[in-house]
Amino acid sequence: MAHIFIDQIEPGQTVDDIFLVKEPILRSTTRGDLYIAMYLCDRTGQLNGRMWQATETIYNALPKPGFVHIQGRSEIYQNNMQIIVNNISIVDTSKVCLDDFLPRTTKDTDKLFKEVKDILSRIKNSQLRALIDEFLADDELMKKFKTAPAAIRIHHSYLGGLLEHTHNTLNVAVAILPFYPQVQSELVLAAIFLHDIGKTEELTYDISFSYTDTGQLLGHIAQALLMIKQKADHLEAKDKKIDQNTMDSLNHIILSHHGQYEFGSPKLPATPEAFMVNYIDDLDAKINQVTAAIDNENPDADWTSWQKTLETRLYRKRIEQ
Amino acid sequence: MAHIFIDQIEPGQTVDDIFLVKEPILRSTTRGDLYIAMYLCDRTGQLNGRMWQATETIYNALPKPGFVHIQGRSEIYQNNMQIIVNNISIVDTSKVCLDDFLPRTTKDTDKLFKEVKDILSRIKNSQLRALIDEFLADDELMKKFKTAPAAIRIHHSYLGGLLEHTHNTLNVAVAILPFYPQVQSELVLAAIFLHDIGKTEELTYDISFSYTDTGQLLGHIAQALLMIKQKADHLEAKDKKIDQNTMDSLNHIILSHHGQYEFGSPKLPATPEAFMVNYIDDLDAKINQVTAAIDNENPDADWTSWQKTLETRLYRKRIEQ
Amino acid sequence: MAHIFIDQIEPGQTVDDIFLVKEPILRSTTRGDLYIAMYLCDRTGQLNGRMWQATETIYNALPKPGFVHIQGRSEIYQNNMQIIVNNISIVDTSKVCLDDFLPRTTKDTDKLFKEVKDILSRIKNSQLRALIDEFLADDELMKKFKTAPAAIRIHHSYLGGLLEHTHNTLNVAVAILPFYPQVQSELVLAAIFLHDIGKTEELTYDISFSYTDTGQLLGHIAQALLMIKQKADHLEAKDKKIDQNTMDSLNHIILSHHGQYEFGSPKLPATPEAFMVNYIDDLDAKINQVTAAIDNENPDADWTSWQKTLETRLYRKRIEQ
Amino acid sequence: MAHIFIDQIEPGQTVDDIFLVKEPILRSTTRGDLYIAMYLCDRTGQLNGRMWQATETIYNALPKPGFVHIQGRSEIYQNNMQIIVNNISIVDTSKVCLDDFLPRTTKDTDKLFKEVKDILSRIKNSQLRALIDEFLADDELMKKFKTAPAAIRIHHSYLGGLLEHTHNTLNVAVAILPFYPQVQSELVLAAIFLHDIGKTEELTYDISFSYTDTGQLLGHIAQALLMIKQKADHLEAKDKKIDQNTMDSLNHIILSHHGQYEFGSPKLPATPEAFMVNYIDDLDAKINQVTAAIDNENPDADWTSWQKTLETRLYRKRIEQ
Amino acid sequence: MAHIFIDQIEPGQTVDDIFLVKEPILRSTTRGDLYIAMYLCDRTGQLNGRMWQATETIYNALPKPGFVHIQGRSEIYQNNMQIIVNNISIVDTSKVCLDDFLPRTTKDTDKLFKEVKDILSRIKNSQLRALIDEFLADDELMKKFKTAPAAIRIHHSYLGGLLEHTHNTLNVAVAILPFYPQVQSELVLAAIFLHDIGKTEELTYDISFSYTDTGQLLGHIAQALLMIKQKADHLEAKDKKIDQNTMDSLNHIILSHHGQYEFGSPKLPATPEAFMVNYIDDLDAKINQVTAAIDNENPDADWTSWQKTLETRLYRKRIEQ
Amino acid sequence: MAHIFIDQIEPGQTVDDIFLVKEPILRSTTRGDLYIAMYLCDRTGQLNGRMWQATETIYNALPKPGFVHIQGRSEIYQNNMQIIVNNISIVDTSKVCLDDFLPRTTKDTDKLFKEVKDILSRIKNSQLRALIDEFLADDELMKKFKTAPAAIRIHHSYLGGLLEHTHNTLNVAVAILPFYPQVQSELVLAAIFLHDIGKTEELTYDISFSYTDTGQLLGHIAQALLMIKQKADHLEAKDKKIDQNTMDSLNHIILSHHGQYEFGSPKLPATPEAFMVNYIDDLDAKINQVTAAIDNENPDADWTSWQKTLETRLYRKRIEQ
Repeated sequence: MAHIFIDQIEPGQTVDDIFLVKEPILRSTTRGDLYIAMYLCDRTGQLNGRMWQATETIYNALPKPGFVHIQGRSEIYQNNMQIIVNNISIVDTSKVCLDDFLPRTTKDTDKLFKEVKDILSRIKNSQLRALIDEFLADDELMKKFKTAPAAIRIHHSYLGGLLEHTHNTLNVAVAILPFYPQVQSELVLAAIFLHDIGKTEELTYDISFSYTDTGQLLGHIAQALLMIKQKADHLEAKDKKIDQNTMDSLNHIILSHHGQYEFGSPKLPATPEAFMVNYIDDLDAKINQVTAAIDNENPDADWTSWQKTLETRLYRKRIEQ
Repeated sequence: MAHIFIDQIEPGQTVDDIFLVKEPILRSTTRGDLYIAMYLCDRTGQLNGRMWQATETIYNALPKPGFVHIQGRSEIYQNNMQIIVNNISIVDTSKVCLDDFLPRTTKDTDKLFKEVKDILSRIKNSQLRALIDEFLADDELMKKFKTAPAAIRIHHSYLGGLLEHTHNTLNVAVAILPFYPQVQSELVLAAIFLHDIGKTEELTYDISFSYTDTGQLLGHIAQALLMIKQKADHLEAKDKKIDQNTMDSLNHIILSHHGQYEFGSPKLPATPEAFMVNYIDDLDAKINQVTAAIDNENPDADWTSWQKTLETRLYRKRIEQ
Repeated sequence: MAHIFIDQIEPGQTVDDIFLVKEPILRSTTRGDLYIAMYLCDRTGQLNGRMWQATETIYNALPKPGFVHIQGRSEIYQNNMQIIVNNISIVDTSKVCLDDFLPRTTKDTDKLFKEVKDILSRIKNSQLRALIDEFLADDELMKKFKTAPAAIRIHHSYLGGLLEHTHNTLNVAVAILPFYPQVQSELVLAAIFLHDIGKTEELTYDISFSYTDTGQLLGHIAQALLMIKQKADHLEAKDKKIDQNTMDSLNHIILSHHGQYEFGSPKLPATPEAFMVNYIDDLDAKINQVTAAIDNENPDADWTSWQKTLETRLYRKRIEQ
Repeated sequence: MAHIFIDQIEPGQTVDDIFLVKEPILRSTTRGDLYIAMYLCDRTGQLNGRMWQATETIYNALPKPGFVHIQGRSEIYQNNMQIIVNNISIVDTSKVCLDDFLPRTTKDTDKLFKEVKDILSRIKNSQLRALIDEFLADDELMKKFKTAPAAIRIHHSYLGGLLEHTHNTLNVAVAILPFYPQVQSELVLAAIFLHDIGKTEELTYDISFSYTDTGQLLGHIAQALLMIKQKADHLEAKDKKIDQNTMDSLNHIILSHHGQYEFGSPKLPATPEAFMVNYIDDLDAKINQVTAAIDNENPDADWTSWQKTLETRLYRKRIEQ
Repeated sequence: MAHIFIDQIEPGQTVDDIFLVKEPILRSTTRGDLYIAMYLCDRTGQLNGRMWQATETIYNALPKPGFVHIQGRSEIYQNNMQIIVNNISIVDTSKVCLDDFLPRTTKDTDKLFKEVKDILSRIKNSQLRALIDEFLADDELMKKFKTAPAAIRIHHSYLGGLLEHTHNTLNVAVAILPFYPQVQSELVLAAIFLHDIGKTEELTYDISFSYTDTGQLLGHIAQALLMIKQKADHLEAKDKKIDQNTMDSLNHIILSHHGQYEFGSPKLPATPEAFMVNYIDDLDAKINQVTAAIDNENPDADWTSWQKTLETRLYRKRIEQ
Repeated sequence: MAHIFIDQIEPGQTVDDIFLVKEPILRSTTRGDLYIAMYLCDRTGQLNGRMWQATETIYNALPKPGFVHIQGRSEIYQNNMQIIVNNISIVDTSKVCLDDFLPRTTKDTDKLFKEVKDILSRIKNSQLRALIDEFLADDELMKKFKTAPAAIRIHHSYLGGLLEHTHNTLNVAVAILPFYPQVQSELVLAAIFLHDIGKTEELTYDISFSYTDTGQLLGHIAQALLMIKQKADHLEAKDKKIDQNTMDSLNHIILSHHGQYEFGSPKLPATPEAFMVNYIDDLDAKINQVTAAIDNENPDADWTSWQKTLETRLYRKRIEQ
């Protein structure tokens, strides 16, 4: 049975469906009766839920957050829609169609991943080759790489976003490298493939987008460095030590790819390759952020709302079709 | 007769050649004799020159700066090379091979310009088309466009640099636009063609690179705005008024293409096209600056000297050939 | 009939008057009936309005925003006043006393404008004279100049504010120029007259204060530059070309009058006149902002609320009467 | 006998005059003979001096720095002028015409001071009146106030500069206060009179311009605060206690008159009067700095050299005579 | 009778207790009846209060803010608790147990103060000794010193906080001075004792924490300077003048102890002692702020909420017990 | 035979000693004879050296840089001392007393290291214990740890400086931890021990102080992270895996210990322990820098020269002996 999305529920409608419950709280009314206030969510939004005649047992059993099947009815209360819950039961995550709850890229991730591998096949340098192959051979990691978002907010913040961002930046690099013959092209490709790989560990994206403890304490730049060392150690154990200059050149790009100290790069770019990766990454993220903001807002307005990180509103009127 | 370049003169050598004289000063020795101290320059560097037994007449006749033919001899004085000038005569700029005195792109500017026009021929939007054609038809301006440097220092600071930078950024735009289908491609191409057109007026580049008064007081961003208005006024006079939205969209990209207030942009980018032009411009300028710094320094050293505007030294060691 | 102002409506009062309607939305109740939620505004504030038993036809006819005559009744709902609308009809802007809806200077604008012209009559330099006369002769522009606010928020944000600000800064300049004899006084007066002239185009101020598209994309500094070029082109067509040095000196003051890059000036002041205009403009704007903030707040409190742009609260206690 | 100024000495000239000696050092030649290297200075510049056949006794007797009478001869050594000193004798500061050694305002300081007192006589508020009179009655302080420079470098850096700056800012305030009737005018005048009074203690200006230890450790803002308290304590001892609100309002202007934290103001302006004093002070200082820079540079050049604190070169070409 | 704290009131409970009333407003209902809306507060939080059937007489008599005894009943209204007030009467502050209304250190302030004096007894330098004794002998000031908070928000914002912060920083100084033998230890101890003494005057802390007018206009740094001068003047009157170098060295530490201009220090540290006081002060304030934020938040969460002044959330998970 | 230090050589003295030769260059005189210009250095400074009648063979054999034994004579040339070199021969680094060439701590490093180990023995937590022991057992690393400087410039820039800085910060931590009982003390001690351990790899310090390529490309923060992972991997291989929370907590302190993004920390402190390590590190570095600057300058002057990184001159006058 198809999920009824939050943004399509009408007032006075019967509701019998699975939702993500968040921040349930047990409260008592002025008459002393217990009730549960909660948010009911899917990928299109969230509504207040109220379960009257609740008990501590019901409350304690609820996941915080997690999936529940609810039966109830929608109503308008003080100009806002809310859902009166009559029955609530817990649903195992494995039974849930996650796509209903987390936004996901509209692109075909298998195709994107294949194209990423095709581009990476241009890398002939034996040292980089070995390192990249070590990553590609790590099935568990590649599965995460295909699923993770590229960020919690701002840009490519949907399942598959990391892959989509990596795919697009690799394509841009392939397209422009011919115009910069002094730039070491294979190093650029390898670095772009790995520049955000730490996000697979920095973020959680099973039932909602958030940071892991490690992610928040270390950041994806430091995590990428540790992951590359891990792979290099494996190669060294197989007598294929990556030489120091290759490791340094690659690690430097990872460490400097945010381009400025205040964006969390502990080093500023010091090679042509580091500058190129910094610009391509930033270009792709910003264009994604800007076009998403334009797409998501009122199509009748010439300007979007104020975009805090860009310090401007965005102009939506076009001169081309 | 081929020019003997400054950086190839040996001590004790006879010198009989044309140089650019700069900052000549008339001084007297402790015995009261007059002499002229001056710099003698070409595109490879400058040396101190000394003309003993000078007269006020000779001094007054000297251009400040300008070209002179000198006869004399090189010598080491206090560990530095200098040139003892016996005869000096003024040379008209028209007689001088300017290429010996100003650095020039190594590329074929006619070919670059033809390719620029080829790329611009992709613009079908009638409004942008008319505006671009108006610029291309301005022979005097196009001659300057093919000759001007892109900057006095930092990046593409050589004759033809503006054309080379515009050519390269147009190529980059053509290469990456397919990956960003929401971005208005013709607007991007038109804006890149014009983004630095104000530099033809901002800079002087006849015998050395400097700012014009107007250039220093207004900057090339404001000058580009006025030049575009000039062309649009011409079109309006021919009953081909450019509509307001097209003018605004194009002007906005010019005004915001430095991307940050502190780099002299009075507006921050507010359209996808403005972001794209900002990034492509900055990428091309930085890669040119970085690779030039790497090429110009001691080839035996792993690191360049400190690059003030980049706040780092640059690493010169490669992993690819 | 005098308008009843929003801030004077009492609960339970009959309302039969013209208001500015903003952001009307058609909604349905839990029972499926349609109603319209809207804001009803004048220059003293805004209230929620509700029209029950609405139809799509009524909704579609409403201006968004615009003026309407409403009949209804005020009531308290959830501690806030709202207006229950029984009848609503559209009113043409020409029938409306705009002064009820937009704040306006308390000064006599004809008198202010006459004094501005008197001060400008001190300009004897033929080039500046011609340019200023060209502006003064543009009746349509002068009408806007007398009507426009100086800003949407912060300082002189009321009809006639641009004129009042220009008038006051001209007076300040006349008063202090004698103490700075090296400063070119006529250039200062001309520049002050024109420094914010671009605001006539940057802002809309017919039914509420906002930015035009061009204004938001270009800003009033760039617009002033284009307007001055327009007038200079007219003069050139009449064989009265303004010389380059005069144009540059004037344009430079316009481009640098915000004094810092981060305030949108693409150039920093580089002449005594540019510094003077920058300081006089800023002084007048800040004193207006500060005294307005002090006047508008609770007269019993010694301190105003936090002023975000000034990073402080303001002290209201005086030592003089 | 008139002093021969440093910038007028010709090579090969006999020198028999008083100079300020700075940083004398006793050195030995390769043959082991002792000589003294020193700088010889007046208000027009400084030259290297060399005294061959020196002794430790001569060296020890020299002031470091201080005034000396030297006899010797000028010569060119390695393209620079230097003075060979044959005799050197110490000169008491009281015998020296300090005007030859320290730059001094060209204005009549007695006249300026009288005009300052005239302006201050407008202050009728009894509290401010008492405080100002207490300062004016302090003869020793007023003598310093008439002599001190307003700064070591940058603006009004000459004897009498503090008075000249205070005189001019008071005049500007009197001229513009009528346009800002809400601003408390007597408070503004009192605050301007005292805003830089701490410089009398912050700086030394007997034989050259420098900071006192206290000045460098506390700054003139903190010193002004302590000086005002001193005067208020005297008044309190005479039963004329200044009330707290007056003290606070005045002290606040002193503490905030640099307008920004990074310029050493521990408080940001929070009253209209504080904003006005901040702007008038800054305007007067900047116009003085800018016009001085323009006057002091090569009159043939259209642009001055780079002005570090202003982040620009200055344009010298005028449109008015 | 023990106070019932705000955060322990249940819905439907009879309330008969003293609260701090804040911002009472007299309003009329839609039927025209008068009622009073107010906040009722203690140190654990605040609730909305409503008194129906109010009169202007009752309203006028209310302190704004101040203590009142109220009788009434709690209820839930629109999901928030509020208190319906039936009777209200004013209570004199002297009758109130302030500890119920203002947070207070959990430490024994008499013991802390004794330990502070013990540490200060290490100061043997006669000049510093005399100055410190002058402060310690000022009973009124020392009473405030033992009561004042160290800040309104952020760190040590509770009664006794200033003493607790001073006590802890003195202890830290005593502990680390042995590792820095070049640092003048007695000067450090004296400066730490006095570094925040101005907060006794900067803040009010009788019924709630706020700034005094003088505090807000001058700041505690300037106030400390004036207080030290006061004490030094007393000593001078007793023929025990503190020498200039001692005054300068101490005052400099006060003026620079925030370490950066943007934190309100008008001088940057220029002595080892100034650096040490700056670091010890900042360390103690930050650790207090961080541990308080960790203690005050949900004990089940691994991370606190976003801490604006620290630009991060804080991690609560420990590896030690 | 004791080394004659550069700063003690007198003019006209015979020189027969070992020096570090830097940047030798082969040049020809105006007569065409070859000579070698070079710098001759030890830890007290450097002088110009000149070897006339040089050959290409001699030049090619010279280390660049490295140690040489020279025979020659000192002389004054153009007011500077230089050394005329008659014979030059290469000296193996192993034969050189490095202490003559590199500054070294005056403390006993064996004693310091023993005390470091004593303090670390307080760590009982089994996970941290295992990790610290792994580091202490790495003899090669510990040898570097005892030898490395803490920085190239600024603070503790001498052999043994890293150990001295680590020793002092550990002592400070032990002294102040009792005043902050909520702070996890063993985690602080472990983190301080390792916070700069990456400097053993970031810097070279065999014949002069410089950065390694890896050091310059990655920085010591990233290197410490990789070194800790290396040790943790060893432990995991021995079945003593360090748990994630311990690794995260420790790594976070390393990554954030510079306290601000602009100082190269990719993360801001988010735990009490991270704040404490940041402050202790900064305090110790600054006090070392400040007292060194004061010790190294002219003992007669009250103020040091301008300290660029501190944005002030330092005051040298004391009130205590």
